[in-house]
Amino acid sequence: MIRTGIMGYGNLGRGIECAIRQNEDMELKAVFTRRAPEALQILTQGVPVYSAGNVTKYKDDIDVLILCGGSAADLPEQTREYAKYFNVVDSFDTHAKIPQHFEQVDKAATENGHIAVISVGWDPGMFSLNRLYANAILPAGNDYTFWGKGVSQGHSDAIRRVEGVADGKQYTIPSEKALKAVRNGENPQLSVRDKHTRECFVVAEEGADRNKIAEEIKTMPNYFSDYDTTVHFITQDELDKNHSGIPHGGFVIRSGKTGWNQENSHVIEYSLKLDSNPEFTASVIVAYARAAFRMRSEGMTGCKTVFDIAPAYLSPQSGEELRRLLL
Amino acid sequence: MIRTGIMGYGNLGRGIECAIRQNEDMELKAVFTRRAPEALQILTQGVPVYSAGNVTKYKDDIDVLILCGGSAADLPEQTREYAKYFNVVDSFDTHAKIPQHFEQVDKAATENGHIAVISVGWDPGMFSLNRLYANAILPAGNDYTFWGKGVSQGHSDAIRRVEGVADGKQYTIPSEKALKAVRNGENPQLSVRDKHTRECFVVAEEGADRNKIAEEIKTMPNYFSDYDTTVHFITQDELDKNHSGIPHGGFVIRSGKTGWNQENSHVIEYSLKLDSNPEFTASVIVAYARAAFRMRSEGMTGCKTVFDIAPAYLSPQSGEELRRLLL
Repeated sequence: MIRTGIMGYGNLGRGIECAIRQNEDMELKAVFTRRAPEALQILTQGVPVYSAGNVTKYKDDIDVLILCGGSAADLPEQTREYAKYFNVVDSFDTHAKIPQHFEQVDKAATENGHIAVISVGWDPGMFSLNRLYANAILPAGNDYTFWGKGVSQGHSDAIRRVEGVADGKQYTIPSEKALKAVRNGENPQLSVRDKHTRECFVVAEEGADRNKIAEEIKTMPNYFSDYDTTVHFITQDELDKNHSGIPHGGFVIRSGKTGWNQENSHVIEYSLKLDSNPEFTASVIVAYARAAFRMRSEGMTGCKTVFDIAPAYLSPQSGEELRRLLL
Repeated sequence: MIRTGIMGYGNLGRGIECAIRQNEDMELKAVFTRRAPEALQILTQGVPVYSAGNVTKYKDDIDVLILCGGSAADLPEQTREYAKYFNVVDSFDTHAKIPQHFEQVDKAATENGHIAVISVGWDPGMFSLNRLYANAILPAGNDYTFWGKGVSQGHSDAIRRVEGVADGKQYTIPSEKALKAVRNGENPQLSVRDKHTRECFVVAEEGADRNKIAEEIKTMPNYFSDYDTTVHFITQDELDKNHSGIPHGGFVIRSGKTGWNQENSHVIEYSLKLDSNPEFTASVIVAYARAAFRMRSEGMTGCKTVFDIAPAYLSPQSGEELRRLLL
């Protein structure tokens, strides 16, 4: 059994807890929280909740500590700190800061003889993997990544900050027209506006000026002004009933040419359609927690990304079983 | 530069030659053939063609020998034999015999200090990889593989053996209805007939009984009798003009559940749309030839499949570049 711990118990932490339950070779030993441990109710019977500050006490009881904090404030500090005491996996997703995060975590993990897998999830994560495989196979080609249809937490937060808005949710929607052109191997040049549209469901406060709200959302720089944005006003009941989930997904497509004179076209497409963004992300992370444990068992240390991990490490099945059943 | 050799110069060998040209870190040193070398015209200027029987003479000049023979008669003997002298990559695709092939090749490669990568291509190969990743991420789920739209060489050969048939080509076509049900997460139970249809383009000999030909094709056991098969009679000119390519492709889909009570559904889909089946297969193989060279350079030996190879080995870019550009 691979003994795991969860650091941080929000949507992602709960998703990890659910995913561990689906994997018979993995066991949840403890959940760690910065909140008052006695106030936290988790799903798994009999598993203790401890204060995050005491986590190092349990370093001999946990094979892999799964870090469920945020990329902005938590993980840049936490991953390199906890990599001193544990094998860790995080979902650090600030693409531009990954190289720096890697260096810092690699130093801590290597010096202390642990494995730290960073930036696990679906983007970065499975989408990155598919970009790498497709680029290696088709060197002459173009990459396209589309996100959605799905809820953007950041854009939903931005809507809710607009004056007169009581509540709201934003969906990022890939453009069917752009997707079609890419799939046809047309290698289109696509602007930000060409690739995605944004759809907002807004609950206005009583007496608020809806035209003003819609205008303010549509012209909001960084978030909406570069996109075709639709704003729908609905009631709080409708929002709660029809928009309470956290679906997401997207498409990674590479189209490329082969042949002596590049006369043949090929399209490689990977897509995800997810009912729950945090639960799917958690399911990817748990598979990589297994990989971290097995790689460490073979003597490897240091920081790894999905690029550095042979696929077989993710599966509970043996090499022989994998060759027989899945190859 | 990674120095490669090609063993066997049919459609796949030519595809390898084209793919090597697209990869700046790779070089074609020689082509080996069982035909008379002087009669073989290859595409690359200045590269020698040698007799297959002399290949071991060049063992110090070639980093990776790419084996382009067939899975039925050639590779079961060739891969384990050449793994004694070279790092090799093959595209052995008889799924049921992969475990046995692996054992034999592993012994030869390990004993002689080489890397042998077997069963590289898209199925087995990229499709297998996607089955593994998706299974590791979503343990509670169902796998579906669809092939096509594409030319099946075996089925086209079968058509051409029917009395009264001058020429013919067969396309395997995935059922849109079945694909839709799978994508919707309906987890359908699909029979062979539900998943694919078969479309045949047949050139009849002068005076042949077309009804009899069509009937014989549609009822042919193993090849067509389990499928809904359509037979179109066309002229040789039409066949040559509209059906001379070797397109293929397909879909690997896994749908699965997550959540404490499996309340959320997810669909992972990988698809390929290929103008040229052999050129795409060759492009995958060349990326794995790079991996073979790099893994051997790090001291690894033995037989490997796509499951055993960390993705980063496939790319000419450094780990630092990959993290910065593709993660």
